[in-house]
Amino acid sequence: QVRQLLNALKPVEIARIIASSPPHSRKVLWDLVDKEVTGEVVEELPSDIREQFLRGMDAEAVAELTEGLEADDVVDILQHLPETIMQEVLAAMSEQDRHRVESILPYGKDTAGGLANTDTITVRPRFTLDVVLRYLRRHTDLPPSTDSLIVVNRKDDFLGLLPLSKLLTSDPNTTVREVMESDINAIPADMHDTDVAKLFEQHDWISAPVVDDQGKLIGRITIDDVVDVIREGADHSLMSLAGLDEEEDTFAPVFRTIPRRAIWLGINLLTAILASAVINVFQGTIDKVVALAVLMTVVASMGGVAGSQTLTVVIRGMATGHLGPTNMRWLLSREVRVGLVNGCLWAGIMGLVAAYWFGDPLLAVLLAVALVINLLVAALAGALLPNILKSLKIDPALAGGVTLTTVTDVVGYLVFLGLATFFYA
Amino acid sequence: QVRQLLNALKPVEIARIIASSPPHSRKVLWDLVDKEVTGEVVEELPSDIREQFLRGMDAEAVAELTEGLEADDVVDILQHLPETIMQEVLAAMSEQDRHRVESILPYGKDTAGGLANTDTITVRPRFTLDVVLRYLRRHTDLPPSTDSLIVVNRKDDFLGLLPLSKLLTSDPNTTVREVMESDINAIPADMHDTDVAKLFEQHDWISAPVVDDQGKLIGRITIDDVVDVIREGADHSLMSLAGLDEEEDTFAPVFRTIPRRAIWLGINLLTAILASAVINVFQGTIDKVVALAVLMTVVASMGGVAGSQTLTVVIRGMATGHLGPTNMRWLLSREVRVGLVNGCLWAGIMGLVAAYWFGDPLLAVLLAVALVINLLVAALAGALLPNILKSLKIDPALAGGVTLTTVTDVVGYLVFLGLATFFYA
Ligand SMILES: [Mg+2]
Ligand SMILES: [Mg+2]
Ligand SMILES: [Mg+2]
Ligand SMILES: [Mg+2]
Ligand SMILES: [Mg+2]
Ligand SMILES: [Mg+2]
Ligand SMILES: [Mg+2]
Ligand SMILES: [Mg+2]
Ligand SMILES: [Mg+2]
Ligand SMILES: [Mg+2]
Ligand SMILES: [Mg+2]
Ligand SMILES: [Mg+2]
Ligand SMILES: [Mg+2]
Repeated sequence: QVRQLLNALKPVEIARIIASSPPHSRKVLWDLVDKEVTGEVVEELPSDIREQFLRGMDAEAVAELTEGLEADDVVDILQHLPETIMQEVLAAMSEQDRHRVESILPYGKDTAGGLANTDTITVRPRFTLDVVLRYLRRHTDLPPSTDSLIVVNRKDDFLGLLPLSKLLTSDPNTTVREVMESDINAIPADMHDTDVAKLFEQHDWISAPVVDDQGKLIGRITIDDVVDVIREGADHSLMSLAGLDEEEDTFAPVFRTIPRRAIWLGINLLTAILASAVINVFQGTIDKVVALAVLMTVVASMGGVAGSQTLTVVIRGMATGHLGPTNMRWLLSREVRVGLVNGCLWAGIMGLVAAYWFGDPLLAVLLAVALVINLLVAALAGALLPNILKSLKIDPALAGGVTLTTVTDVVGYLVFLGLATFFYA
Repeated sequence: QVRQLLNALKPVEIARIIASSPPHSRKVLWDLVDKEVTGEVVEELPSDIREQFLRGMDAEAVAELTEGLEADDVVDILQHLPETIMQEVLAAMSEQDRHRVESILPYGKDTAGGLANTDTITVRPRFTLDVVLRYLRRHTDLPPSTDSLIVVNRKDDFLGLLPLSKLLTSDPNTTVREVMESDINAIPADMHDTDVAKLFEQHDWISAPVVDDQGKLIGRITIDDVVDVIREGADHSLMSLAGLDEEEDTFAPVFRTIPRRAIWLGINLLTAILASAVINVFQGTIDKVVALAVLMTVVASMGGVAGSQTLTVVIRGMATGHLGPTNMRWLLSREVRVGLVNGCLWAGIMGLVAAYWFGDPLLAVLLAVALVINLLVAALAGALLPNILKSLKIDPALAGGVTLTTVTDVVGYLVFLGLATFFYA
């Protein structure tokens, strides 16, 4: 029945169905998955749900599940387990599997070494292509995403790449040395994964070799795993701006969602109280001119909107690497000029609206001036805050939004109500 | 000097330098680029800057620039030109180039056909692998990202794929028919590009064949272009939430940035005026209890923050395809429960703060009640608005944020000031 329907699907589709089901149905579906494909299904699950399932399994079951998985995917799973469980799982694995896995296990999750797989096919430079072709024919298949063989010497030092396209189009009597690409820089194992992704994107690579600090071949990175890095990085900017974790499961149960959101709301409550405290200072003025209470929210809200536009441009520019110290100055000056022009435009219109609405020209002028000032401050804050946060080693995508609206709220209320207090006193 | 330094770089790096330079330096750099690589540089530029350069060139210069580019990249350039210029460029191209390009030009930019390139290597099923190997050896190289040859009959109907890995590991005396993968579904030319990207991500493809509605081979899509689609889609969610265009150039000049931002600020001004109008109704109450003006902004701001968390989760779930009609109900119920719990938590704390601050227990209770109600409304709005907008064919990523804060502002002020009017009257 359901079991048959489910297991007729590919592992990636099973994982998709499990991931998009509410938490209580997941375990039911998971128990229906055929034992032989659980490994592949687990590998495709969002890390959040994956850990949940693995936490409920003993070391032997995990070891069994990793059988037939690629080494890089096994490492992904192991790195998310507690140290003691990881050791137990390793002990329960076959010796060959353990060997493969242990060679790449030491590298950090977010590094090139952490992305690398051990499924390389290596050849020596002195072979002729004919020898290579006969050697390949002894394999039943090539590892997925193999576009190049890797040329190494006896000591496993990386020498270059032999693309399959060269192998297939060149004279079989030439040697590997003659046709190999030796001007290739292998990826150092400690390179950050987002930098690896940038290299893949720029050079349109399918796979790339990874070496340790002595230039010895560790493994290779394939584009499918790089695509996952790209997806994750893009998700990070989007989710962080709302104070969410990019690995937050869309379908996490209530009790897991509440604490994460609560912290964010608590931080925002503090900033809201700060803004209230500013308004509180001007109670007397508001008591005299109640229209101030009606209009002050416009100043704060427009500042927040304008600032978040600048902030988003800067955060995305930083994430893509297009924005650096050299052009930040230019961007800042553009944002200030854009803020000034748009500030004057909408401040003028809003001033007219307010003059007509409350029949008080002074109030309208003060509102317009406060709007222009707050839009200018918003542009400055949107462009500078990410840089300041970054230099304090705080993630600008996460903290940028709160700090920005705190600035635009406080400045907005302060300027508008402050001016009013001065002129109406 | 600079010219030599610049042209020593790869086209992708030249494009990167041009893209991250302020507008006024771009033209200078562009004029320094060697004629032979301008095509490749233009192909790597953000579409925004690319169009700017192309607009300044005559048809013949564009035709010359497309020489040596892949057909899919030429089509990308042509599709962004005005119809008359496009015809002129086509006329100025060599006959062979024009032919290749015209076969894929009719397909929409955002479809599989629009992503397809014509650089396929096709083979017939009755060939032996040995014949195929000898046929390939007559080539000087294979097209980039070739992981499979495409098997077609005499009428160019798609029959299956011959992966290079099969070609290299199988007995040369077997026929293509015996080893080819025939259970592959070629991609229909009118499939949306984001769906193409999902298929590539799920199946870890390197390239895939594209067919027309009669099953005839049109070309193939390669992973490097799919990566660009993924990047663009992710950028779209991020940028749209701030009312920006994902193709907006980070370094666009002031006069191009102003109108785009102005429209967004204008829309937000309208919603801010709406919120002000709500406050205006309660002028009398505020005049009596000025503390209301101090505290009302907390209600609106907390609603906005909570709502945008829900909104972001829903928009990302829709973009990744994890969220559909079947599980939307569950998500809605979770968000409401999370909103209720967190609402009660922070409303309680804020109530205590307000009671201590203003020494008015009634005010504190009203504030807490308004906060709970607004957080509940925020959860409902964050989950439902994207669905409503989508069914109205409005992009939820673009319109979601404004409509959400309009709802949370209006409801926040209305509930808090309304309750106050009722109890203090
Ligand atoms: Mg890993
Ligand atoms: Mg690329
Ligand atoms: Mg995979
Ligand atoms: Mg892998
Ligand atoms: Mg993976
Ligand atoms: Mg992460
Ligand atoms: Mg195209
Ligand atoms: Mg040849
Ligand atoms: Mg994948
Ligand atoms: Mg390219
Ligand atoms: Mg292409
Ligand atoms: Mg491209
Ligand atoms: Mg687009």
